[in-house]
Amino acid sequence: MRRARTSAGPELERLVELLGKLPGLGPRSARRAALHLLKKRDALMRPLGEATLAAADKVKTCSVCGNLDVTDPCGICTDTVRDGAVLCVVAEIGDLWALERSGAFAGRYHVLGGLLNALDGIRPDDLRIGALVSRVQAGGVTEVVLALSATVEGQTTAHYIADLLADLDVTVTRLAQGVPVGGELDHLDDGTLLTALRSRRAM
Amino acid sequence: MRRARTSAGPELERLVELLGKLPGLGPRSARRAALHLLKKRDALMRPLGEATLAAADKVKTCSVCGNLDVTDPCGICTDTVRDGAVLCVVAEIGDLWALERSGAFAGRYHVLGGLLNALDGIRPDDLRIGALVSRVQAGGVTEVVLALSATVEGQTTAHYIADLLADLDVTVTRLAQGVPVGGELDHLDDGTLLTALRSRRAM
Repeated sequence: MRRARTSAGPELERLVELLGKLPGLGPRSARRAALHLLKKRDALMRPLGEATLAAADKVKTCSVCGNLDVTDPCGICTDTVRDGAVLCVVAEIGDLWALERSGAFAGRYHVLGGLLNALDGIRPDDLRIGALVSRVQAGGVTEVVLALSATVEGQTTAHYIADLLADLDVTVTRLAQGVPVGGELDHLDDGTLLTALRSRRAM
Repeated sequence: MRRARTSAGPELERLVELLGKLPGLGPRSARRAALHLLKKRDALMRPLGEATLAAADKVKTCSVCGNLDVTDPCGICTDTVRDGAVLCVVAEIGDLWALERSGAFAGRYHVLGGLLNALDGIRPDDLRIGALVSRVQAGGVTEVVLALSATVEGQTTAHYIADLLADLDVTVTRLAQGVPVGGELDHLDDGTLLTALRSRRAM
């Protein structure tokens, strides 16, 4: 296909081609990004190239929780201030980052690496579910918070894990469902409204 | 600001921060891009880092036309098959790439590096307009095609250049304006419709 062509030499064409493989960048925005980089070679382009290679070499997956960090175990798993008795189960590292940005959680994490999905052929063995059970069996964990999406896949995965943990001495909880903070009622879907109404609380 | 925080070590935070400076990527999509890269370290991440550094080192601006290439003069300026008597004036290198992809032009280019813009303080001396006049004065150019945007800035720049070239022995033309190919009439703005009607041609 000709769409990535720039008529500017193989180095630039290769850069545009690789930038276009990033999620969120198509051929057109990849060309724009490449031109932007070439205008800011010292301020942005060389630092980005070096940061990309440095992260590729140094960032590793935490063998305990599945988080990404330059150390293994990661900074969260080794942070003694955090509560090791509460494990928050998330599908992806991006979810862990979102929770960390919120500052709402001070326990430790367990990253599954995805969600059960029969259509895509993602089965329990493809996720870090066995490692989660082992962590709980090893003791010291009193609560597992299932912070999974309110989608079919998320809830299927949540129920699967809850069943596995049912016989162990641990409380399994999940995130509350309801009206998002700042959400306007007439923009919400019926399912959310129904859930929010059913779970209504005294003021 | 906390938006770029990933709680995944300085290497990854720096990568996310730099990715977020690319046009088209915000903090959220920069985090997604970084996670995507880390999942494809050998297939995408290291090649991208290396391609970024290679392009930063090797790609230079053509001293004749302002195009980007690994050689100076660039491949287009040194291509003897192309018609050196026709110069196509464009604002940015992205416009040159668009024309090259269309395959519609077989002459040479002159990249201005922007458009005149009183509000942004972009004056003739900030653009490669003097170099354009010198190229025409040096002889051998019979036509200058002004391929500039149909915006206020584009047309201001076009008229400014046309005035400068008026006394020289060269034909100055501009791109036709009208209904885009495949464009539906009821989605076009009034200005385009008016121009297309005024410039109507016999079938």
